[in-house]
Amino acid sequence: MSRIAYVDGVYRPHGDAAVHIEDRGYQFADGIYEVIAVRGGKLIDEALHLARLRRSLAELRIEGAIADAPLKVVLREVIRRNGVVNGIVYLQITRGIAPRDHAFPKAARPVVVVTARRSRPANPKVAEEGIGVITIPDIRWQRCDIKTISLIGNVLGKQQAREAGAYEAWMVDGDGHVTEGTSTNAWIVTGDNLVVTRAAENAILNGVTRQALIAIIRREGYQFAERPFTVAEAKAAREAFLTSTTSDVTPVVAIDGQPVANGVPGLLTQTLRADYLVHVAE
Amino acid sequence: MSRIAYVDGVYRPHGDAAVHIEDRGYQFADGIYEVIAVRGGKLIDEALHLARLRRSLAELRIEGAIADAPLKVVLREVIRRNGVVNGIVYLQITRGIAPRDHAFPKAARPVVVVTARRSRPANPKVAEEGIGVITIPDIRWQRCDIKTISLIGNVLGKQQAREAGAYEAWMVDGDGHVTEGTSTNAWIVTGDNLVVTRAAENAILNGVTRQALIAIIRREGYQFAERPFTVAEAKAAREAFLTSTTSDVTPVVAIDGQPVANGVPGLLTQTLRADYLVHVAE
Repeated sequence: MSRIAYVDGVYRPHGDAAVHIEDRGYQFADGIYEVIAVRGGKLIDEALHLARLRRSLAELRIEGAIADAPLKVVLREVIRRNGVVNGIVYLQITRGIAPRDHAFPKAARPVVVVTARRSRPANPKVAEEGIGVITIPDIRWQRCDIKTISLIGNVLGKQQAREAGAYEAWMVDGDGHVTEGTSTNAWIVTGDNLVVTRAAENAILNGVTRQALIAIIRREGYQFAERPFTVAEAKAAREAFLTSTTSDVTPVVAIDGQPVANGVPGLLTQTLRADYLVHVAE
Repeated sequence: MSRIAYVDGVYRPHGDAAVHIEDRGYQFADGIYEVIAVRGGKLIDEALHLARLRRSLAELRIEGAIADAPLKVVLREVIRRNGVVNGIVYLQITRGIAPRDHAFPKAARPVVVVTARRSRPANPKVAEEGIGVITIPDIRWQRCDIKTISLIGNVLGKQQAREAGAYEAWMVDGDGHVTEGTSTNAWIVTGDNLVVTRAAENAILNGVTRQALIAIIRREGYQFAERPFTVAEAKAAREAFLTSTTSDVTPVVAIDGQPVANGVPGLLTQTLRADYLVHVAE
């Protein structure tokens, strides 16, 4: 089955899927995106993703984009045409095509691109043994709550992690607090079993997996706080983990090469992962 | 004459000039650009632009991009095919096309896009009467010295200026110092005729017009300092102006609606503008 992409109203073979060079996504990173997990043919937490998409569009004042109802049809059609049962669907909306000028164009019409792909086989070691993160300065802009395609800072951070042999880089703000990973949210469990993650203000993206896990934590009655934590607190934590659409709940067992607690996935982390996977399967 | 763009090795009609949806410029803002002025058929300060281009590529570790010699041929060919005698040539290089993943792809090859266009007729009032700027917080990332296409913060700032009836927005860092405009560098002249602009560290782009003007200032022996200045100092300045490839040296006569000095272009600014235009015409 050859891959098919949806580009500005048309389904095209992936190899021919192109956008104009004056699409503002290409010249100004003037657009937003979402990645939604597909499991057993279902879109996981689709409503949360679409709500966040609307918020991102509103924050950038991109007007006139495709409405939820037709967008949901397109997402399903792209998933179907690509034979994706387990994988992801990727959705990008830019402000549109216009002669290059920084300010908003008067006449542009948003461009929508949707692709889908099957999951690569998950490496079981990642969940069983956990992963390592490094910490790096957070040099990104101050509106990381908007899910823009302006990701060069995230790209450089992820590459730094890769070269350090780590799965992810946790970024650290000017006050020494962890913001988030380059494509994941950061969590710790303190010595007295308090689950901690940073509040969803402008410095981090409010991850959909983060939101879903918070709902689970509240439902199950675990102790929980949304507050910043330092790198030192993370290194001294009982457990640590990260969340994202593609990594679910993944144990973090080393930070900057130092083991977290005894260097194996924490019990509460494993419980939360199991709870989350039940939510996904529901 | 219909417009022609150069896209990844091929000259194409502008309307058909497209890049793949998985070009990392479109999904990650993973690329850099330059805008070079064309005056009387000549590329102004081409060597400075190409040196900065190489620096941007090196900072992002984009390897294997087109070398200077063939690039210079392409720039001239795009200018020629578009009949541009006075205008600009735009040049963009991204890391290339690869399945979406934040870290650098192993096999991507940089994609080069070049366009050119004739200048819109300059509004003589801009240079004769000067323009107004507003001041806004600088919320961009911490590597604005790299000329990336990750410009969403600049876009939002320019739009804010436009809506305030201003020509430009000067961005202000956490210490209250002006960094730069959204697509221009910021300058003041103090009460004792000292020309001041911020040093070219990570917070600003080292504008080519800025570099050329500094060379002129040194040659002519004007008093000059590269240091930060506050919004208050700018509002109390004797003169203010901005520089960029497309705006040359443009007098700033109002900041946040308050006139700079007596609200007309300053004498030293006019001298520097004239000196710069001589440099361009040389």
